[in-house]
Amino acid sequence: MEKTLEDLAELVGGEVSGDGAIRIKGIKGIAEAEKGDITFLTNTKYLPLLKTTKASAVIISPEIKTNLKTPALLSQNPYLAFAKILRLFYQKTYQSLGISKHSFVGKEVTLGEELSIYPFVYIGNRAKIGSRATIFPGAFIGDGVTIGDDSIIYSNVTIRERCTIGSRVILHPGVVIGSDGFGFAKDGNQYFKIPQTGIVKIDDDVEIGANCCIDRATLGKTWIKKGVKLDNLIQIAHNVEIGEHTVSAAQVGISGSVKIGSHVTIGGQVGTVGHIKIGDNVTLTARCGVTRDIAPDQFLGGFPAIPHRKWLKAQAGFLNLPDLRKRIAEIEKEVQILAEELKKRGEENE
Amino acid sequence: MEKTLEDLAELVGGEVSGDGAIRIKGIKGIAEAEKGDITFLTNTKYLPLLKTTKASAVIISPEIKTNLKTPALLSQNPYLAFAKILRLFYQKTYQSLGISKHSFVGKEVTLGEELSIYPFVYIGNRAKIGSRATIFPGAFIGDGVTIGDDSIIYSNVTIRERCTIGSRVILHPGVVIGSDGFGFAKDGNQYFKIPQTGIVKIDDDVEIGANCCIDRATLGKTWIKKGVKLDNLIQIAHNVEIGEHTVSAAQVGISGSVKIGSHVTIGGQVGTVGHIKIGDNVTLTARCGVTRDIAPDQFLGGFPAIPHRKWLKAQAGFLNLPDLRKRIAEIEKEVQILAEELKKRGEENE
Amino acid sequence: MEKTLEDLAELVGGEVSGDGAIRIKGIKGIAEAEKGDITFLTNTKYLPLLKTTKASAVIISPEIKTNLKTPALLSQNPYLAFAKILRLFYQKTYQSLGISKHSFVGKEVTLGEELSIYPFVYIGNRAKIGSRATIFPGAFIGDGVTIGDDSIIYSNVTIRERCTIGSRVILHPGVVIGSDGFGFAKDGNQYFKIPQTGIVKIDDDVEIGANCCIDRATLGKTWIKKGVKLDNLIQIAHNVEIGEHTVSAAQVGISGSVKIGSHVTIGGQVGTVGHIKIGDNVTLTARCGVTRDIAPDQFLGGFPAIPHRKWLKAQAGFLNLPDLRKRIAEIEKEVQILAEELKKRGEENE
Repeated sequence: MEKTLEDLAELVGGEVSGDGAIRIKGIKGIAEAEKGDITFLTNTKYLPLLKTTKASAVIISPEIKTNLKTPALLSQNPYLAFAKILRLFYQKTYQSLGISKHSFVGKEVTLGEELSIYPFVYIGNRAKIGSRATIFPGAFIGDGVTIGDDSIIYSNVTIRERCTIGSRVILHPGVVIGSDGFGFAKDGNQYFKIPQTGIVKIDDDVEIGANCCIDRATLGKTWIKKGVKLDNLIQIAHNVEIGEHTVSAAQVGISGSVKIGSHVTIGGQVGTVGHIKIGDNVTLTARCGVTRDIAPDQFLGGFPAIPHRKWLKAQAGFLNLPDLRKRIAEIEKEVQILAEELKKRGEENE
Repeated sequence: MEKTLEDLAELVGGEVSGDGAIRIKGIKGIAEAEKGDITFLTNTKYLPLLKTTKASAVIISPEIKTNLKTPALLSQNPYLAFAKILRLFYQKTYQSLGISKHSFVGKEVTLGEELSIYPFVYIGNRAKIGSRATIFPGAFIGDGVTIGDDSIIYSNVTIRERCTIGSRVILHPGVVIGSDGFGFAKDGNQYFKIPQTGIVKIDDDVEIGANCCIDRATLGKTWIKKGVKLDNLIQIAHNVEIGEHTVSAAQVGISGSVKIGSHVTIGGQVGTVGHIKIGDNVTLTARCGVTRDIAPDQFLGGFPAIPHRKWLKAQAGFLNLPDLRKRIAEIEKEVQILAEELKKRGEENE
Repeated sequence: MEKTLEDLAELVGGEVSGDGAIRIKGIKGIAEAEKGDITFLTNTKYLPLLKTTKASAVIISPEIKTNLKTPALLSQNPYLAFAKILRLFYQKTYQSLGISKHSFVGKEVTLGEELSIYPFVYIGNRAKIGSRATIFPGAFIGDGVTIGDDSIIYSNVTIRERCTIGSRVILHPGVVIGSDGFGFAKDGNQYFKIPQTGIVKIDDDVEIGANCCIDRATLGKTWIKKGVKLDNLIQIAHNVEIGEHTVSAAQVGISGSVKIGSHVTIGGQVGTVGHIKIGDNVTLTARCGVTRDIAPDQFLGGFPAIPHRKWLKAQAGFLNLPDLRKRIAEIEKEVQILAEELKKRGEENE
């Protein structure tokens, strides 16, 4: 495929600076790009590389375009422009592979059209699979599971009984949906297992990273709402709800019955206690530990989580603690000297 | 199924308050319950919901039952009562599915009675599987592995060679038992792999959460004792021992050769260094980092782990650090003023 | 197998102390060893056990050998000596199992010699598998994947399309190689998926722990270099590079585009922000959080990561914060008293 820079600008709703007729054959990173490639600059840290890149054009924000010799595609959202052009050059059209005879399909299963079911896929009884869904080898689809249209279930994913998966959902390899919630009642010195009778409901356009675990509800449902994006190795406990278009970085742990709002941003390795509410548009920076309800629109860090700016200050104070202790010891000495001096003077005056 | 409130009280060893003849058809959360359902209240936070619930009865502790109009099942352990009634209404009786012809069973395998072996299960040579065990699709049972009666091995679980699994054990999807311990000897600038020749032994009534990893011992065994319950995504290193009826929340990491006592409670995202002992009945609160031996009956938090109460105080001090620094700067100024004043007076007096 | 102590000393390049003709039949831990076994002592913590061990000989460093009655194999690197003797007694020679007829092999696949391909293995089109590779049940090898000679791919591993795996690589159960990087461009209120078009390249002699996730690059490659050893449940984001012979403990998270040098040592539960460089020979102690570029040869701890020694001091200060606050309150009181006294004297003098 070959496009002019003008074609690309039109596709992404941007403007051309320089020669718009230049022909673009691919898209590469700024260091790897060759003649004929378009590249992109979204992090000003990499600005110096613009002088040495061999790329024929660069996607860039109009604000940081300064004395640029390379032809440019100016975009208010260069990252989005980059993503759209990448999709143009790389994304393949879906082709149905059919249903492998090496897969296992249970009884009373409802299958959509143009499916791709790989070998060693297990589909339980009464499952419903939407059209153009792709299910990779080793995936386990439990009894009564529903999967929407155009969803991709990667290899070795588990979706346990009765859970529902929306349309255009992507479950990366090793994801576990609908494992038992961690519920035990103390019975003397032992633990009595609480049956986990609920389900997991995953709405449309959700993407869940490799080896994430999303437990089913004790009663009712664990609910991941429309457009949520989860990175790898995340733990979502039973009865959690995550609001629309919330994103989370890797290795986060959300405890039981937590309700997270929409458009929340969660950094890596964050954790929460159970039974709390986190409002819409909250940002939890990496490693923050949330121990109470959080009002909407907060920007938090630290453990326990406090306003990020306040946390940064406390953190700076923490690093200066040895210095602080030294200063306090010095003051103590000085105050003692003053007190003694004052006492001496007093005695002299008597 | 339908039971009277009196029947249920008898089942769980509780008492009835109000109409014991009322008929109960199901059990639901306090917000979702309908007429004919029993609900439960174990967290006083949700007490206000009691006024609006449509449930026909509620499981509650005698202590928090105040002016209750709804018929109630009074129990000293309402959570346990809830669990038992949930099991009554929801738990299915085990039904053997037999051994799928799409599974693979090795040589000299000993198989118990009434098994459920799903398609795409691999069972290695000389394995022994107890009666009424269920093994879901994609599970790998290595050579010489033993699995006890009534155990459930979910989809895509790996149990490597020679490991032993007790009776009534539940391994959730993606669990890895018996992977090599992380052992390397430095050999100049490189690492020399130490063969991991031991096993993992899992005793009766253990439950292990989705995608947990339990490494085999270098020599001897990694040992998870009777009744231990592990949540998801936990890492247990080689040669670790975990005592009876210890429970751990998700994403915890236990380093090599750590010995944990019985009835220990471990919060989420806790970590430990290697080669330490943690005594019986210890509680490690969420995210705590243990760096030394811990005596029994301690309640610890923080990193490095200290008594939880002390940690909370230090944590409060941490958040007030910017304020503390300001106070110190003010004292320094004041002391300087005092010192100058005193010096001036001294000079005046001379 | 039986070897004299002298044979073993020769094998590992060590020296004999005591009877070198003594015959050794096995190797065990110091507490479990019986007559005929050799044992080892690498941690001085276990020194008292030397008096009670039943072992016929012990591997030990010449420095800590004191009044030893047991015959000993003296080695400057006792851990390496132990590893080599363990390998001698335990390691089996590789035996090819052939290619199971219950596996699935795609089109135009290139297969090496003496392979062991288990049942329920899926190998995609145009994949290339080196000689003497072992691929366990449930492993998914995507289209165009390359695997080198003598590599071991354990059960339920996923290697997605086009990724390359070197020779003598070990991927433990549940590992995911080449899942999509976590890349989304904000598009109004929603997220637009950035196609992840790159690959993961894993060089020779790498070992990756159970359920680790290594994402493919957005463009180009995520690159794990020669001899890297990763423990379990580690997250490696897109476009990361990890230098030769770097080792990492479990549950570590490395964010996108981070470049880690060679011979780096990473403790458990460490995390990093994205787009930073960590120099050669750096040590990051357990749980440390790296937020900026790190020069070579640093030894760091804490969050944000600072020199470990400094962090330990600050940490000690943290635990003493309640005491510090008390001292400050006392000084404030004392300074006030002094000020009042001084004021009074001033007034008296007027």
